[in-house]
Amino acid sequence: MPETASSAERVDWIAVDWGTSNLRAWAMADDRAVATVSAPTGMGGLERHQFEPALLAATEPWLSAERPIDVVACGMVGARQGWQEVPYLAVPTQPVVASAMQQVSTSDPRLTVRIVHGLSQMDPADVMRGEETQIAGLLGLEQGFTGMVCLPGTHSKWARVEAGEVQSFRTFMTGELFALLAKQSVLRHSMGEDGTLHDTVFDNAVRVAAETPADLTALLFGIRASGLVADADNEDARSRLSGLLIGAELAAMQQEWSGGDVVLIGADQLAERYLRALHALGGTARMVDAQACTLAGLVAARHQLLEAR
Amino acid sequence: MPETASSAERVDWIAVDWGTSNLRAWAMADDRAVATVSAPTGMGGLERHQFEPALLAATEPWLSAERPIDVVACGMVGARQGWQEVPYLAVPTQPVVASAMQQVSTSDPRLTVRIVHGLSQMDPADVMRGEETQIAGLLGLEQGFTGMVCLPGTHSKWARVEAGEVQSFRTFMTGELFALLAKQSVLRHSMGEDGTLHDTVFDNAVRVAAETPADLTALLFGIRASGLVADADNEDARSRLSGLLIGAELAAMQQEWSGGDVVLIGADQLAERYLRALHALGGTARMVDAQACTLAGLVAARHQLLEAR
Repeated sequence: MPETASSAERVDWIAVDWGTSNLRAWAMADDRAVATVSAPTGMGGLERHQFEPALLAATEPWLSAERPIDVVACGMVGARQGWQEVPYLAVPTQPVVASAMQQVSTSDPRLTVRIVHGLSQMDPADVMRGEETQIAGLLGLEQGFTGMVCLPGTHSKWARVEAGEVQSFRTFMTGELFALLAKQSVLRHSMGEDGTLHDTVFDNAVRVAAETPADLTALLFGIRASGLVADADNEDARSRLSGLLIGAELAAMQQEWSGGDVVLIGADQLAERYLRALHALGGTARMVDAQACTLAGLVAARHQLLEAR
Repeated sequence: MPETASSAERVDWIAVDWGTSNLRAWAMADDRAVATVSAPTGMGGLERHQFEPALLAATEPWLSAERPIDVVACGMVGARQGWQEVPYLAVPTQPVVASAMQQVSTSDPRLTVRIVHGLSQMDPADVMRGEETQIAGLLGLEQGFTGMVCLPGTHSKWARVEAGEVQSFRTFMTGELFALLAKQSVLRHSMGEDGTLHDTVFDNAVRVAAETPADLTALLFGIRASGLVADADNEDARSRLSGLLIGAELAAMQQEWSGGDVVLIGADQLAERYLRALHALGGTARMVDAQACTLAGLVAARHQLLEAR
């Protein structure tokens, strides 16, 4: 059963954040969420014909037989393996653009579903899907924002935002590498289960990776070697792995974050770790709530759709 | 059934290269191999009590009831998860040292088995097991060798050899990262099966990684992005992944290989790839046959044991 909060209030439209692992939907009265639901029916586990039923299952209480309700969805639902592939929009561009969103055909007459596009960059080649909506949300929450936006995650994104547009961006495999190395590489012998990280070890690893980022793949093996020759414990190993990967990412982006306003949008714990890493290198950033950005971005997308009508 | 070549010649002792995946043994008349056998009974698939039966199964035709035959084994057989843990010897040191080898207890009276130690380094923490024997072999084949030895593989090693000793060494996770990223990361969607690499794409990737090694984890994601926005094909993706990882490794070791004599010891195809990458960066190296080094190293270990008696 999905976690649901229903509402007696009028529901004007439905906002949906549909990622690889989860779906989150909000019942919206104008720009305000009046109820929310989340379900584990992420895009990663669905065949193409299962998307509409999954959406109906999650949002049923908010639907009405009287008129079709608008649904605006962002995230991996629009990927090639998703409900319907919605092409990327090339930067520089506003983060969300009505004309690039796509309506997907549905059989239930109570729904009209539109999916937000992703963003792409040709040189260097890069893509994002879902983060563009969070950036649009940041611009909704902080109009006129100019600076770097860092969105940590499985694939961390750094986007330069200026004049209401995403000018360029860069993706790092930091989160995915962490998971692969911790669980499936030789380093797994030195790792504990998920747990707290050791701050001093983490900070030192961030600095070492930032000083000699070229040594990354040797520094990684050093985690295993330290477990064998210096009896480093599991918490140490986990903290070093996290610090080395985030430190290498920050080293690559140093010019971008050392200059000015940096906003971190991400899950609390991970965003805090990036903030800590930035501090270890003499930088800083502001954290903005990720879910608030997503919702504000879907609101911005909805406004665009209304204006384009 | 193991692949065997038996011999009517006298067998003085048995040399064994016992890695994670395979076992290779040679029947030796003095310093000369007169027969060889290989079997898929690597250390990775054996419980502790299965090592002796596996060795007997492979070498049975060479054993004699008249007197116990000496066996000298190197590789992961001496690891913590192997037959018996043989402690690492700290560098600087001769690559193989009789007093650090260990006899393992066996129940069959026809065998006396000794396992070669690995090498360790405290700062930066590092370990090797198996490669020390190949380095000893190189010193047996080329007496007085001074220079860098590169041993590509799952965990590539670079060792500085001088005055008959391993002075220091460094390990890179290059091979393991390649396998994890090609088979288990988001990049797998862009990869073909094992196959030929595209030389120009490989060379370019080596150069890009060597110029901006700090960007490695972003360059890796770029492989996926190129598949999505620029229709790069599977062979391109595989070639870039290989080039980026080897290029980053070479960037970290540039001071070491740009100076002087570099010897590459490894499986032919992989060693050739490293040679190609070195050429792309204006360096060079000599290739020495890996199996010849292993065998010569086991011969050197055997000589040490005889002298120590």
